[in-house]
Amino acid sequence: MKFVSIVMGSKSDFDVMKECATTLEKFGVPYELIISSAHRSPERTKNYIKDAEERGAQVFIAAAGMAAHLAGALAATTTKPVLGVPMESGPLKGEDALLSTVMMPAGMPVGTVAIGKAGATNAAYLAIQIMALQDDELRVKLQEDRIAKAKKVELDSAEIEVRL
Amino acid sequence: MKFVSIVMGSKSDFDVMKECATTLEKFGVPYELIISSAHRSPERTKNYIKDAEERGAQVFIAAAGMAAHLAGALAATTTKPVLGVPMESGPLKGEDALLSTVMMPAGMPVGTVAIGKAGATNAAYLAIQIMALQDDELRVKLQEDRIAKAKKVELDSAEIEVRL
Amino acid sequence: MKFVSIVMGSKSDFDVMKECATTLEKFGVPYELIISSAHRSPERTKNYIKDAEERGAQVFIAAAGMAAHLAGALAATTTKPVLGVPMESGPLKGEDALLSTVMMPAGMPVGTVAIGKAGATNAAYLAIQIMALQDDELRVKLQEDRIAKAKKVELDSAEIEVRL
Amino acid sequence: MKFVSIVMGSKSDFDVMKECATTLEKFGVPYELIISSAHRSPERTKNYIKDAEERGAQVFIAAAGMAAHLAGALAATTTKPVLGVPMESGPLKGEDALLSTVMMPAGMPVGTVAIGKAGATNAAYLAIQIMALQDDELRVKLQEDRIAKAKKVELDSAEIEVRL
Amino acid sequence: MKFVSIVMGSKSDFDVMKECATTLEKFGVPYELIISSAHRSPERTKNYIKDAEERGAQVFIAAAGMAAHLAGALAATTTKPVLGVPMESGPLKGEDALLSTVMMPAGMPVGTVAIGKAGATNAAYLAIQIMALQDDELRVKLQEDRIAKAKKVELDSAEIEVRL
Amino acid sequence: MKFVSIVMGSKSDFDVMKECATTLEKFGVPYELIISSAHRSPERTKNYIKDAEERGAQVFIAAAGMAAHLAGALAATTTKPVLGVPMESGPLKGEDALLSTVMMPAGMPVGTVAIGKAGATNAAYLAIQIMALQDDELRVKLQEDRIAKAKKVELDSAEIEVRL
Amino acid sequence: MKFVSIVMGSKSDFDVMKECATTLEKFGVPYELIISSAHRSPERTKNYIKDAEERGAQVFIAAAGMAAHLAGALAATTTKPVLGVPMESGPLKGEDALLSTVMMPAGMPVGTVAIGKAGATNAAYLAIQIMALQDDELRVKLQEDRIAKAKKVELDSAEIEVRL
Amino acid sequence: MKFVSIVMGSKSDFDVMKECATTLEKFGVPYELIISSAHRSPERTKNYIKDAEERGAQVFIAAAGMAAHLAGALAATTTKPVLGVPMESGPLKGEDALLSTVMMPAGMPVGTVAIGKAGATNAAYLAIQIMALQDDELRVKLQEDRIAKAKKVELDSAEIEVRL
Repeated sequence: MKFVSIVMGSKSDFDVMKECATTLEKFGVPYELIISSAHRSPERTKNYIKDAEERGAQVFIAAAGMAAHLAGALAATTTKPVLGVPMESGPLKGEDALLSTVMMPAGMPVGTVAIGKAGATNAAYLAIQIMALQDDELRVKLQEDRIAKAKKVELDSAEIEVRL
Repeated sequence: MKFVSIVMGSKSDFDVMKECATTLEKFGVPYELIISSAHRSPERTKNYIKDAEERGAQVFIAAAGMAAHLAGALAATTTKPVLGVPMESGPLKGEDALLSTVMMPAGMPVGTVAIGKAGATNAAYLAIQIMALQDDELRVKLQEDRIAKAKKVELDSAEIEVRL
Repeated sequence: MKFVSIVMGSKSDFDVMKECATTLEKFGVPYELIISSAHRSPERTKNYIKDAEERGAQVFIAAAGMAAHLAGALAATTTKPVLGVPMESGPLKGEDALLSTVMMPAGMPVGTVAIGKAGATNAAYLAIQIMALQDDELRVKLQEDRIAKAKKVELDSAEIEVRL
Repeated sequence: MKFVSIVMGSKSDFDVMKECATTLEKFGVPYELIISSAHRSPERTKNYIKDAEERGAQVFIAAAGMAAHLAGALAATTTKPVLGVPMESGPLKGEDALLSTVMMPAGMPVGTVAIGKAGATNAAYLAIQIMALQDDELRVKLQEDRIAKAKKVELDSAEIEVRL
Repeated sequence: MKFVSIVMGSKSDFDVMKECATTLEKFGVPYELIISSAHRSPERTKNYIKDAEERGAQVFIAAAGMAAHLAGALAATTTKPVLGVPMESGPLKGEDALLSTVMMPAGMPVGTVAIGKAGATNAAYLAIQIMALQDDELRVKLQEDRIAKAKKVELDSAEIEVRL
Repeated sequence: MKFVSIVMGSKSDFDVMKECATTLEKFGVPYELIISSAHRSPERTKNYIKDAEERGAQVFIAAAGMAAHLAGALAATTTKPVLGVPMESGPLKGEDALLSTVMMPAGMPVGTVAIGKAGATNAAYLAIQIMALQDDELRVKLQEDRIAKAKKVELDSAEIEVRL
Repeated sequence: MKFVSIVMGSKSDFDVMKECATTLEKFGVPYELIISSAHRSPERTKNYIKDAEERGAQVFIAAAGMAAHLAGALAATTTKPVLGVPMESGPLKGEDALLSTVMMPAGMPVGTVAIGKAGATNAAYLAIQIMALQDDELRVKLQEDRIAKAKKVELDSAEIEVRL
Repeated sequence: MKFVSIVMGSKSDFDVMKECATTLEKFGVPYELIISSAHRSPERTKNYIKDAEERGAQVFIAAAGMAAHLAGALAATTTKPVLGVPMESGPLKGEDALLSTVMMPAGMPVGTVAIGKAGATNAAYLAIQIMALQDDELRVKLQEDRIAKAKKVELDSAEIEVRL
């Protein structure tokens, strides 16, 4: 089965990454979600990635904070697309995690999204966009979502707008 | 035909983005490359994206500097995956372009890569990884490239290494 | 009718941007205020700007957070002056929005003001100053406001000052 | 006569601010350009601003580097619109000048543009947009400039573009 | 009478600057404390500084936040030593105020201290050190204060220290 | 006796540095813990370091905030390894303490760890790793700790993981 | 004799700090200038400061780069005013030296000036302003210098100014 | 044999890391030096670390730039002390490498030193200090080096110092 795999570096990332899982569910995209650390459980991480890849993982989403190496560790293990979500944790509010995730050396890309909740949601969206390249139904859902989002803007505006 | 589309915000981005094109060529992935600005030619940008999407563009790569809106403008126009390469141009050396590219609001992802040349190369790699989900030949090439990269590290090391 | 147009990228910006509207009201400057997103509703944004411009909008004020493209999108659509207010939202507290708003490429200016509430008020003031170039009554009000502000400083000081 | 006034804090800013003057000339907008410092010649600065305002200055453009107070000093002296151009000078490459210029307190706006040359050009454009509110000929020139800019993008692209 | 003059840009700075006044009182150094803004009441500021200087002000302490121009405005008005305290106010937590205060151009120094409360206290200490150059009693008090501070460290340590 | 010495610049650092002490206790490593400031009690600091070194201190851990000079002062006093923990205190959230601790000139190293609690723990771990070079029992404990940490990741994951 | 004492942390700081010495010479203020490091020669630094203080040093100026502790070490040794000049050296261009110098804890002030050459000059000016509190001749020279600076602005302006 | 192991992520790091090797040689400390990447050759890296550890490596020094994961990868593989040297490479001049190296999660320490050449030297010094805990000869050399460094300061000073 084709699915998305979400790996978090720490249990404390779950609150934010739930947004990612919820978004995948909304679009009906199957996913796995585990905790595995680049530093505390490197073997587990590597073994899981290789196994998940064989079982059909199409896109990996890695969430980590501070010196966030998890997405890079995944990118070094698989040639499937890896997306990175920098967590807002720690005193630097994710600026460290952003740079640790995005500034990867040539040949080892991590498609990085925004720090925190917006990023958690966007990693799901980007994974769905990638899956949709092989799935027309998903493609249509993404287009409908766009229309719904534009409609939502109008409704939000209607509540407060001032027109002359 | 399935292809990757590279859009640069300015002619001065070409020197860096050549790396992106060269990488796609190395893997035999067809690509288009144009200049179109989010601000100076928004209509051209929109029309090109919609046309490219219809003609088979699978992934869009946007390169822009400073208040880098190009990747975001693409992300708002298509539901295909959009990758953003922050340029190093201007006095802030790409820190502005990085934040303008990566901090997208929920629902409008840009898969952002490193500032400058490493990013230009990595956007190509990430696009190839996405295309390889539907292309076994490409998948094999990516795996061979990994082996070559590891080999290259050994050769580089051999030139200078000191062993006891 | 000549008026100021305020566009916010998200409903959550309203709390801050109320300051902007309140300031315009205080000076008796007509204004419109809507929500429209550069990314989620680009067509709505463009159509609104063109329509507002025709109906007499003199200055546009755009408020957005994170990768804040809204002011730039407006600047690309109209040749009327566009002012940008970076929102304090997200983990980076508006540093991202500031750079995304102010670092515009040559030929596409956004007159950027401070992050957050001070900026919301100042965008209104700058718009009023621009309108006042054609409106002597408004010019006088601005001068009176300056005198009142200086007087307020004296009153504030009187409450706590220590003189020898 | 209605004109734009450019004030630079130091002779070393002239190289960059020539871009501002050149842009105003291109659009046929009369301008004055002087050096006057917020710190080294505060009286001269104040007197010049008040005199220029009486003689018809519509917009003031202030360029300064490091702890860039010049634009703020102008904003405190006049109720005409003041635009600020942060210079790239000094070890912090204009990050200090940007924050010193843009983070003005409520009621004293400075419409800030990008650091360095892009900002010098954009301050001129924004001043022209403001003057164009009272000048239909100027408004038409701005619209023609937009068309020329879009055309220029196409020509730049034609030199290098790769199409399938 | 020789005294220290404290000028704050806004009433909201008083909570922090009370530390400054308290420290001066502790050492028996006479001081004045007023609110006056570089932007909202420039005339008042200038007149006060000139008057205070004539009446015996030896050191000026300026406290301001965001685009903190107050210390620089004082430095431009007097040749007495000016000390600057960057306030922690606003979304950037005083990083803007620090750069706006410390990065003064050659010939117009502001002796800048830490952001916030530590800075408020230190501006008082530095002023006292300057006054002590002409006042032996004050010099002795400063030396006693050092001894007391060292003693305080020992007492603090005694409460928690672990020795083998 | 061989032991680790923890020096904090201020009583307010104790809450965070308790993590450091607790970690050393967990591994059965003897330690001392005192408060002594680089600035307020330089003589006490120097005397303590020299005495502790003679009594068997193997590693020094220094914790300080803001312009954090304590670790550097220790590094200048002893040739034993010095580890620095930047505190999160003050408006800049430890960014100042990090740079003040890590950017030491050639020949005077401070082994710097993360800002705040993670750093407090890690300074203990690094000290233990250094002590373990001479202590096989400690080396085994470190390896067991690694296994426990990997196991903990699995348990954490089991509580929330989603598998297909 | 009353004099100013300049201490540099490294020989490489001399090129910049010559500006400081030159400025003191211009005003006829006696000075000493030595190299002494907070880390490499702490005893020498302490002994020199205590000796210089006894011999009449009124103000100390410390110049250091990176984790710049020198000014703080001086401030801990003397109760005379200490001014700090952050050097631009190293990869962070003085941002580290600025924070290491200015963010001193309460009770241990360093009057910090701009990074690099402007700061080197301004430390001299601030020292002269402090010395001038006891020296009427110096006070007059400072006032003349201000007039000369204002005149210089006019002359600079005359070379390039454009007047209508 | 007890030795230090230096691992660099890329050939381009060698120019800087030569300083590290030279320093170890100066103190007669045996070392190995290889290139191995956390991302491009993770297996080689792991195998080398495990082998080096068995053969007597006491301290590992890792040098990497940008999203610098190498030191963290080593720290996850061994319980020997790991020191990290952030390289100055890339557009962000090592700020990214510093944060990626130092902000490690609790339990996985990397003793981080300064960005660039000073750091390369200091990683060697810190490694020597650690080795000296078991080697009296080395301890004496370190103390002699301190005396030489202090002497060098005096000689440097003698060339330029100005004394009254």
